[in-house]
Amino acid sequence: MSNTMKQVVLAAYPCGNPGPSDFRIEEVPVPEAGAREILLRTLYIALDPLIRFSLDEKVLSGASRMVPNAVMIGPTVCEVAASNHPDYAPGDVVEGRSGWQEYSVVAPDQSDYRGPPRKVDRALAPVSTALGALGGPGQTAYEGIVKVGRVAAGETVVISAAAGAVGSIAGQIVKVLGARAVGIAGGTVKCAALLDLGFDAVADYKAPDFADQLKTALPEGANVYLDNVGGDVTLAVMPHLKRGARMPMCGFIAYYGVGMEGPGPDHLPGFYRQIMAKGLEIKGFAGIFGGQKGLEDIAGWMKAGKIRFAESMVEGIEAAPQAFSSVFSGHDHVGKLLVRVAPEA
Amino acid sequence: MSNTMKQVVLAAYPCGNPGPSDFRIEEVPVPEAGAREILLRTLYIALDPLIRFSLDEKVLSGASRMVPNAVMIGPTVCEVAASNHPDYAPGDVVEGRSGWQEYSVVAPDQSDYRGPPRKVDRALAPVSTALGALGGPGQTAYEGIVKVGRVAAGETVVISAAAGAVGSIAGQIVKVLGARAVGIAGGTVKCAALLDLGFDAVADYKAPDFADQLKTALPEGANVYLDNVGGDVTLAVMPHLKRGARMPMCGFIAYYGVGMEGPGPDHLPGFYRQIMAKGLEIKGFAGIFGGQKGLEDIAGWMKAGKIRFAESMVEGIEAAPQAFSSVFSGHDHVGKLLVRVAPEA
Repeated sequence: MSNTMKQVVLAAYPCGNPGPSDFRIEEVPVPEAGAREILLRTLYIALDPLIRFSLDEKVLSGASRMVPNAVMIGPTVCEVAASNHPDYAPGDVVEGRSGWQEYSVVAPDQSDYRGPPRKVDRALAPVSTALGALGGPGQTAYEGIVKVGRVAAGETVVISAAAGAVGSIAGQIVKVLGARAVGIAGGTVKCAALLDLGFDAVADYKAPDFADQLKTALPEGANVYLDNVGGDVTLAVMPHLKRGARMPMCGFIAYYGVGMEGPGPDHLPGFYRQIMAKGLEIKGFAGIFGGQKGLEDIAGWMKAGKIRFAESMVEGIEAAPQAFSSVFSGHDHVGKLLVRVAPEA
Repeated sequence: MSNTMKQVVLAAYPCGNPGPSDFRIEEVPVPEAGAREILLRTLYIALDPLIRFSLDEKVLSGASRMVPNAVMIGPTVCEVAASNHPDYAPGDVVEGRSGWQEYSVVAPDQSDYRGPPRKVDRALAPVSTALGALGGPGQTAYEGIVKVGRVAAGETVVISAAAGAVGSIAGQIVKVLGARAVGIAGGTVKCAALLDLGFDAVADYKAPDFADQLKTALPEGANVYLDNVGGDVTLAVMPHLKRGARMPMCGFIAYYGVGMEGPGPDHLPGFYRQIMAKGLEIKGFAGIFGGQKGLEDIAGWMKAGKIRFAESMVEGIEAAPQAFSSVFSGHDHVGKLLVRVAPEA
């Protein structure tokens, strides 16, 4: 292997939504693993929108802050290239948090709140699914639909950001449970992909007749709204929710670039009115609480052909800044957006 | 009795918060009860802020729209003056919905969704409490604290609009349950009244050091936030909520004068951030679902001296427009705001 590698460095904190110029590609020496450390060869990087929270002077509690001129950090799937730690052997594939770079050195004994790198079973499914259906997005979808949403057969579930990693899995779980899945996504490409995944109906939020599409897709309203978006989409959905509907909330990408006190859409009053008028139940949650049970169920459903994993791949570490920025501006990717950094050995 | 009576008529739909000039006092003939109707002599009128929803071209589903030049309608306690209905006898005291006027004719067989006038037990407590602790506000407080909030001994509960009809009862229920009650109200008069009712701590949202007062009152955060207000007060409270806190929501007076799409405080993004970051649970509810169990518990606690009813009285039907308007502009009343129209017989 070469003595140098490429990495993506944060150039400056983004103002609002991130753009490619907020990042820089650098060439640096490949690091070496010290005592009880492992050297990882990066296979896949997940372009997780939650990373946006770390790119700020003021971070949300729980998020680890990234600093300008340091390498970007996020969820990855890597192959162990060299190991000085008894729990890991060369050739193991692991999922965890590491740098947006071709090689990373990780100390499993000093891992953050997410725990040490998790070994991935190559036999179960393609290893990239450890970042999607069999990783955080799968846990989030399961928690939202099964635990918080408590979806029952015969109910109708509407899902925002339905073509995303969480939404595309969530909709398929809805179908497994015998309920009706309605997906909201931007553009005809994504909407067609959702129907192909088994969604019963779709509404394109970028279409001029979005309101009519939503009405047609939800003739009798919805029992559950899995919200990953917030903003105008959520305001459009809320009037279609039935009395006592559940609204699990796993993200709010409409506001990720907006400061705590910053400017934003002007519709909290309408939001409150809908909560009150319908006795809505809202619950914020994060997929990390979903736990192992969810992943086991999803793996079983995948094996039974009931759930397909959707992922979109961009090639090479240099593509990461542009692809990450596209997450916030309504791209055309379906499923989890990944960077393929290197082929599996 | 005189052949004429006074009534409060809606002059025009208010623009934003109601003002006295949106109403008119008129002198009209006392009506007569027809077949299966009863004639009611009005004792007390509750100046319920929810009435605001009926004063609009576009009303929320469920609210009955009032029209200009017709008499105002709302919750009242009345004495049966004459009866052509077998279920009611002269001298009975009833609680229900009737006009802001000295006498009303009601047809119990044609009552709206709230059911026919409910008979009030004079022996239990002063009959005005049928509009407060032993009426809708009591049911709402019980539902919010006991059912939706699921408050347990040792927890901390923060309550907005704590000096209002719902809040003043809710805080006392919190104390009955062995939990800590923190009240938010506007002005030193109300805050002192809350401490007198047994609240453990208060914060004055009109004080320049409101943020510090809130911090001092909630040194370890809150498990439950009973929200009746929304807006800036809610945004100030949310950072003090613990992870997984419950947030029963029974009103949003900050927005009652704001249209569904109209201008309002610009902070939905911050609201979403707090829901997500803390896994908050929000549930809109209306007290009508609290049911009879709540009222029985409250009556028992009142008898045991554990709950005091707080009410503020203005005298005479002519005072209603001014007093109703004051509800939306931060008045100094504590507890349920009532108009005493006539003395009990």
